[in-house]
Amino acid sequence: MTSKGLFVSFEGIDGSGKSTQARRLADTLTARGHEAVLTREPGGSPGAEEIRALVLQGDPDRWSAETELLLFTAARRDHLERTIRPALAAHRIVICDRFADSTRMYQGLSRGDLRAAVDQLHELMIGQEPDVTILIDMDPAAGLARAKSRQTVEERFEDFGVALQEDMRTGFLALAQEFPDRIRVIDGNRPEEAVARDVLDAVETCLP
Amino acid sequence: MTSKGLFVSFEGIDGSGKSTQARRLADTLTARGHEAVLTREPGGSPGAEEIRALVLQGDPDRWSAETELLLFTAARRDHLERTIRPALAAHRIVICDRFADSTRMYQGLSRGDLRAAVDQLHELMIGQEPDVTILIDMDPAAGLARAKSRQTVEERFEDFGVALQEDMRTGFLALAQEFPDRIRVIDGNRPEEAVARDVLDAVETCLP
Repeated sequence: MTSKGLFVSFEGIDGSGKSTQARRLADTLTARGHEAVLTREPGGSPGAEEIRALVLQGDPDRWSAETELLLFTAARRDHLERTIRPALAAHRIVICDRFADSTRMYQGLSRGDLRAAVDQLHELMIGQEPDVTILIDMDPAAGLARAKSRQTVEERFEDFGVALQEDMRTGFLALAQEFPDRIRVIDGNRPEEAVARDVLDAVETCLP
Repeated sequence: MTSKGLFVSFEGIDGSGKSTQARRLADTLTARGHEAVLTREPGGSPGAEEIRALVLQGDPDRWSAETELLLFTAARRDHLERTIRPALAAHRIVICDRFADSTRMYQGLSRGDLRAAVDQLHELMIGQEPDVTILIDMDPAAGLARAKSRQTVEERFEDFGVALQEDMRTGFLALAQEFPDRIRVIDGNRPEEAVARDVLDAVETCLP
């Protein structure tokens, strides 16, 4: 049992293995006697999952970047209130597949002029960062190949080719430079077990 | 035909007759050769109507005040982009049953501590005010009686009794003092025709 909660997020390009690593970390921590809560964004609470469906289903152009940003922020607020904060208050370890860095990266990529609004909206309505963020850094072409080998229901963000993957990687690495105290970059171009060991090491240094 | 668009909003407590007056104004302006677009909030565009349904259906406690504020702001952004701005760009008169003043008033009433966030969110993601806002001022008990005589699908905001109606009236009148150049207060405690004449007078002074 931990004596206080810990909020861990995972970020990375499509096919980086972040979801697999998030699940492995939850399993390992649980096996070691911690109470771990595995969650994801967008979604992670019943209300946020409904908002996720509203955003991701239908015509990709149905929402503008600004409306989509507001909807994802609403989903994040619900997720924070209903899932993350209660778990942290109960001294659990919250492991979240994507959080605000994904919004920063995606909006920065497609609408760089919105980055200031992204930050102000986060400050105003979310106001919470993970204690530690694991960025799984991955070769863009290898990540794309892995993402394409999967069956994904929501293809929207995963069908843009290697150039987008490269831009996403650059965007995430820029965020790692922007938040060096919070974001730990881990090389994902290695066997799953080796990556998992580094993830566990990074998180364990943050445990009490 | 007007030579430029005009954005008119209607506000007022439940049963004030604002929806009736908005419709009458649209009909009268159309009969006089103007191109009028009648719309409403929350909703007013296909996407915003979906968000409206998400917010208003189900358990009243399913969303926190903050999440609800974000969802209504997302709906307003979509309504603005898809309905209001295109109509104004086409030199039409947009007549909107409720707009941002309703958010200011309702959130100010239930969560006064959120009023600053309401204003910052509006500034950041909406940034548009009506050219003129018609506030139909109504005796709270009379408004409640009228609202109760109607069949309403969404009862959430209309089932709180005369004390709430009084608070809402006070809230709207405070907004009229805060925005004296934009908000015109019209006495709704009179026959519909008399109110409609005053509404038309107020709007006509804003037409080119």
